[in-house]
Amino acid sequence: MVGLHLLLGLALAIVQCYGESLYKNPSYTPKERAKDLLELMTWEEKVGQLGGARRLFSRVNDKLSFNETAVGITLKTQNGQIGFGSQLNYASEVLPVANQVRSAQINNTRLGIPFITVTDSVNGIYPTGGTLFPGTCAMGATWNIPLYQQAVAAIRDENLALGVKWVLSPEVDLARDPRNGRNGEMYGEDSYHVGEFATHYIKTMQEKDERGYVKVATTIKHFVYGQSSGGVNTASMHGGLNYIFNELGAPYIRAFRDANPLSLMVSYATVDQVPMSANKYMLRKILRGMMGFTGLIMSDAVAIPHLYSRSKVAKSAPDAALKALRAGLEHELDPSGNAAFPTLVDSVGDAEIAQMIDEAVKAILEIKFATGTFDLPLPSGHMLEKTLRSDRHLEINKNVSRESIVLLQNDGALPLSAKTKRIAVLGPYADVLNSGSYSATNASEHKYGNTIRSSLERKLGVRNVKYVAGVDVISTSKDTSRIPAAVAAAKSAGVAVVVVGSGWSGQDTSAVSVNRTDGEGYSHPDISFPGMQQQLLDAVLDAGVPAILVLSGAQTFLLNDSSKRSRAILTTLIQGEFTGDALAEILFGEVNPSGKLTMTFPEAQGAFPVAYDYFPSDEQGGFTGSGRFDWFWPQLTRYAPLRFGFGLSYTTFEFSAPAVAKNDNTTVAATVTVTNAGNITGKEVVQLYYRPAVTEIEFPVMRLIRFEKIELRPGESKQISLEVPIYDLGYFIDGEWHVEKGLYNLWVGSSSRTQDLAPLNITIT
Amino acid sequence: MVGLHLLLGLALAIVQCYGESLYKNPSYTPKERAKDLLELMTWEEKVGQLGGARRLFSRVNDKLSFNETAVGITLKTQNGQIGFGSQLNYASEVLPVANQVRSAQINNTRLGIPFITVTDSVNGIYPTGGTLFPGTCAMGATWNIPLYQQAVAAIRDENLALGVKWVLSPEVDLARDPRNGRNGEMYGEDSYHVGEFATHYIKTMQEKDERGYVKVATTIKHFVYGQSSGGVNTASMHGGLNYIFNELGAPYIRAFRDANPLSLMVSYATVDQVPMSANKYMLRKILRGMMGFTGLIMSDAVAIPHLYSRSKVAKSAPDAALKALRAGLEHELDPSGNAAFPTLVDSVGDAEIAQMIDEAVKAILEIKFATGTFDLPLPSGHMLEKTLRSDRHLEINKNVSRESIVLLQNDGALPLSAKTKRIAVLGPYADVLNSGSYSATNASEHKYGNTIRSSLERKLGVRNVKYVAGVDVISTSKDTSRIPAAVAAAKSAGVAVVVVGSGWSGQDTSAVSVNRTDGEGYSHPDISFPGMQQQLLDAVLDAGVPAILVLSGAQTFLLNDSSKRSRAILTTLIQGEFTGDALAEILFGEVNPSGKLTMTFPEAQGAFPVAYDYFPSDEQGGFTGSGRFDWFWPQLTRYAPLRFGFGLSYTTFEFSAPAVAKNDNTTVAATVTVTNAGNITGKEVVQLYYRPAVTEIEFPVMRLIRFEKIELRPGESKQISLEVPIYDLGYFIDGEWHVEKGLYNLWVGSSSRTQDLAPLNITIT
Repeated sequence: MVGLHLLLGLALAIVQCYGESLYKNPSYTPKERAKDLLELMTWEEKVGQLGGARRLFSRVNDKLSFNETAVGITLKTQNGQIGFGSQLNYASEVLPVANQVRSAQINNTRLGIPFITVTDSVNGIYPTGGTLFPGTCAMGATWNIPLYQQAVAAIRDENLALGVKWVLSPEVDLARDPRNGRNGEMYGEDSYHVGEFATHYIKTMQEKDERGYVKVATTIKHFVYGQSSGGVNTASMHGGLNYIFNELGAPYIRAFRDANPLSLMVSYATVDQVPMSANKYMLRKILRGMMGFTGLIMSDAVAIPHLYSRSKVAKSAPDAALKALRAGLEHELDPSGNAAFPTLVDSVGDAEIAQMIDEAVKAILEIKFATGTFDLPLPSGHMLEKTLRSDRHLEINKNVSRESIVLLQNDGALPLSAKTKRIAVLGPYADVLNSGSYSATNASEHKYGNTIRSSLERKLGVRNVKYVAGVDVISTSKDTSRIPAAVAAAKSAGVAVVVVGSGWSGQDTSAVSVNRTDGEGYSHPDISFPGMQQQLLDAVLDAGVPAILVLSGAQTFLLNDSSKRSRAILTTLIQGEFTGDALAEILFGEVNPSGKLTMTFPEAQGAFPVAYDYFPSDEQGGFTGSGRFDWFWPQLTRYAPLRFGFGLSYTTFEFSAPAVAKNDNTTVAATVTVTNAGNITGKEVVQLYYRPAVTEIEFPVMRLIRFEKIELRPGESKQISLEVPIYDLGYFIDGEWHVEKGLYNLWVGSSSRTQDLAPLNITIT
Repeated sequence: MVGLHLLLGLALAIVQCYGESLYKNPSYTPKERAKDLLELMTWEEKVGQLGGARRLFSRVNDKLSFNETAVGITLKTQNGQIGFGSQLNYASEVLPVANQVRSAQINNTRLGIPFITVTDSVNGIYPTGGTLFPGTCAMGATWNIPLYQQAVAAIRDENLALGVKWVLSPEVDLARDPRNGRNGEMYGEDSYHVGEFATHYIKTMQEKDERGYVKVATTIKHFVYGQSSGGVNTASMHGGLNYIFNELGAPYIRAFRDANPLSLMVSYATVDQVPMSANKYMLRKILRGMMGFTGLIMSDAVAIPHLYSRSKVAKSAPDAALKALRAGLEHELDPSGNAAFPTLVDSVGDAEIAQMIDEAVKAILEIKFATGTFDLPLPSGHMLEKTLRSDRHLEINKNVSRESIVLLQNDGALPLSAKTKRIAVLGPYADVLNSGSYSATNASEHKYGNTIRSSLERKLGVRNVKYVAGVDVISTSKDTSRIPAAVAAAKSAGVAVVVVGSGWSGQDTSAVSVNRTDGEGYSHPDISFPGMQQQLLDAVLDAGVPAILVLSGAQTFLLNDSSKRSRAILTTLIQGEFTGDALAEILFGEVNPSGKLTMTFPEAQGAFPVAYDYFPSDEQGGFTGSGRFDWFWPQLTRYAPLRFGFGLSYTTFEFSAPAVAKNDNTTVAATVTVTNAGNITGKEVVQLYYRPAVTEIEFPVMRLIRFEKIELRPGESKQISLEVPIYDLGYFIDGEWHVEKGLYNLWVGSSSRTQDLAPLNITIT
């Protein structure tokens, strides 16, 4: 408490000292204050605001390490923002040192312009010690927006307690290529579903406090990023304005309209040969001019130097800086020392550059003013302790985990009988918390969560759970010597839970784990399970032991005929600290699974891109008329049964024949009654899809336009009405919104699969 | 001879009868004659010119079948052109009936406007009985332009002998996706190499005869087609103007500049949501306006009806016809009865439509006049017999086959010792002539060519060649029961040639073969060998028998570690009638292999698109700095050793250090001396690649700009100078040609692999 008083006192002293300046006065708007401050700043001070020191801390010998000298050098020329660095550090260690840095900046600089703290925040806060939620793909799989709002509010408040006022989320990239190792950070393949989650993320994060300050600013990203060559994270992609407006850009346009994200991150992608960090057309004309984005535009890490070091479209760092500035970039995200924007100090006096820099500085200052960074006290250790891992946050997290697991196949083997007393738990992913990229690495002691193995041990007792990894996560040695032991354990127990997959365990103690297979910088050309995991699964199934296959990670693997012999299949996706517990609850029927896929599983190697909303012309392999041709076309999405929106339950939901009605020719409403026809309470997602029958340009075979998750007790019925403004049924042609008149096809049901949908027609005049 | 005189007499009678009309007078230009004729035509006659009866004949009970009634009905409303139909029919049966149809049209119609005969012509003439050349991909693999010119001239003359005045080639689509089943019809992955072959194809086909008539008109296709979704033939693709101008469009632009193809076929593709058959922007603005194409624009087969039946961007056939016409289509290719353009007869009196139809009719009439279709006599059976399969054509064909086979790996096992008296020939592709899509199906009697099996039997004697198929081409039955017999044969012989692959045998008697795996309408999401072929190969290798692996077909298969145990690997690509003989010559060292890859082999499932000229940003998987990450990135093209331009020889070529010089700052010339350092004569392809060091937009890591194939005797040296106008070193930015000043990187060598290239630098001011 002494520290807090001291800081508050300091803050008051500063306000008194600079009391005469308009920018210090909270009664003015952020825009007015930024304008005022800008006029007081030197050229160097302005350039400094365009970057920051994103990695204050590392971890050395299991302790937080703060290299004050190195940080100080970076901050001399890049002093707009700070970030924390290693995810291995504990929040409780981070806060006091971060506060020292923050205070020094406020107290020891001419104008006292505070740093704003910016961090990644995917499963929760960036350092260790917060509530560890499941990854974004798992959040999306809940299809539960109210629950997601609770989770985002918890993540927001834990960030605030650390003084983080700006996060590098939401990621609205569409997960349509199973090779991309970053799918775990994405909500899924569908632009409406992604837009819905992202919009609520932004609204919740940017909720205003009682004084009117934005709690945490958001960064919508990566503009734009999709279908990159080879499924490689940073690779080139082709353009196509209709594709960008209707698919990749749709979540952005939705978020700009409804949630006003304060910043946006530009992708690493090269679109039609023009790197996005130098893509004036895409940023100034499309993003600013046509999509109407008004917030700050930042680079991805090191993307501006890449203009000369990788893409070779700039001669040097100063040339790259100028090209990026001209394209519209206003802030440089750079974890290393080779930032390009600081070279702009040499351009003093250039009127064109001066004007662009002024715009860029205003953009970050406005965020700082809007978030109260100039006005609010630094966070206290007391509040940190009170906020992180509060009972409420842990409860929300448990509920997210329970709703994010998707049941893909079940011959009745699940739920396991209460008489099941012994179980074999096999596979390398059974004993890691596969929390994915950018999760806090909650150290190795399993302090903040159970693996699937440990959750089952808690439930059944350690002696009743026989765990055998069987194979390595990454097996370059092709070692299968431990598979027989796994099979023996399965036979002895009589039932096996086989956990295989791909990903990155947040429990690894190295920042770049030796067992990492997914995340930023990774991709999978082969969509089988990495290493010898398929061999492990095959051996257990060959032995005839009833097996429950559990997939771990965000990748949509190829489930071959052998794997499908499993009695039941579930996916946990990117896990949070309660995913193991939730899975145990589901296996034993204490929780009824209700997650739904947001990424369609390809039916063959190379059967991608894959998404339920393909174009009519994608459906034809060429000649038709004979079933035997199908042998050559498993890549067609119509052959993928594990499709967007699909997920099983332990109960049965019956959908009545749906009806559709127009209201005043301004909205359309589809109505259906859903009944729980089984014996246990469950949750179902009612989904509405549509397509204008004839369109000016090709339109997908169907698109999601509304969904709602409901809970029903046994025998209970609910009538659900999903209403859509007719305006929302349009699409872009060359960047112009167009709504067809005439016949529309609608579909209502429990997934995007034909067999789960009832068709409807309505004519719009 | 009687027939010929009779026909000549008829033609003379017609000329006399209509002697007063300008359009009948060959001394006027095609443009003048078309304009004159157009003014005489009724609305119905005009609409009739927009289509034709593409399939006059089918084959029933092993005989040519001509349904005069059905053909007559089609020709009533679609009478611009005719085509032959089934590839199973013999040219000698086709010609007299075709001539009847042609004569009837000339004699029995008001204006006597002749049909023009249009056919596919990939490996040679469309019906059976001509010289069967290897497929386009194999032609490209020769890298021998003078030889290719000879082959095209032979194909041209055989077409002329049948009265074919217009062919549906060249196909300049880029083969960059190994899943696409149509790669066999493409020259390869590189736009310069493709443009070079296509330009010489067009020039040779369209060579003028002594009277100034174009011998055979060409159709450059499919504008534009590349990187379609899932590798599926007809699927959608994204746009990107730079991508289209610099990659997909480059062979078109080259051909328009240097060879003037008289027609162009529009692709089935939907580009950025707009089907190409309705894509006014791409056809009128880009193709006509910016690329400067002046010939006739035709649809692909049934593509206009697809606008309403598949893409659903038109309400009906008349709506589709109008959209296509407005987009710029001038001719409808339609093998069935449901053409859309005939519905335009109902639009009589509409001034906009009338004007577009006039343009379209003029386009086809000009081709008819230019090719002498109005003036020249119908072809005679005598000339047909004299032309088809002439000794000269067969000799050219043998030489093409000898130069199109590519040696990919050789530990010294090849050439086989002359002492090799017995050999096992294994695999399902050893006993088919895998001539690919659109090849004449030279019936089942092996009359016109040997399979690999029969070629080896001819060489060694039937009793010394033990053939076992081992597995089926398409094994849905997963039958491996015959593999042990194959292994036994291999052990007994002591050496095995294992022929595996994918494709379509031209020897199958059904037009759509039950054993077909490639060609139009086919694609492979899995790039392993179809069926149980890998199991067959593995079993032979496991048995320790020295094995020569021969790949059959155009697909670039995944060569896994097991396959690479083969003592040597060759690919025959899409075969002609002498490919088996040429392979036997190569196996025994009578011919030194000199083919070079034109399609890069991917190193993993899903490791595509793949091409040597990827962008700098594609090269990074993300994080770098540790070799172990490479495990995740086999999809990066830099890891593909079997790369564009690569192919082994039985001799060794030594390249001197190359030099580069500028001439007057208008051309650049790279000079290198190549020496045959081995003991036998061989051919080598000298390749020149380049890249401006810094570019305005991203430029590939390197691009081919010149190549030359040379022959060297043992010990012989030649100095090769590859000269390039500096103007040609540019690239398109937003459709504008741009030549960089400053440093250029050049590379000279024997393939696109780093280890086969020597770097050079030059500065252009």
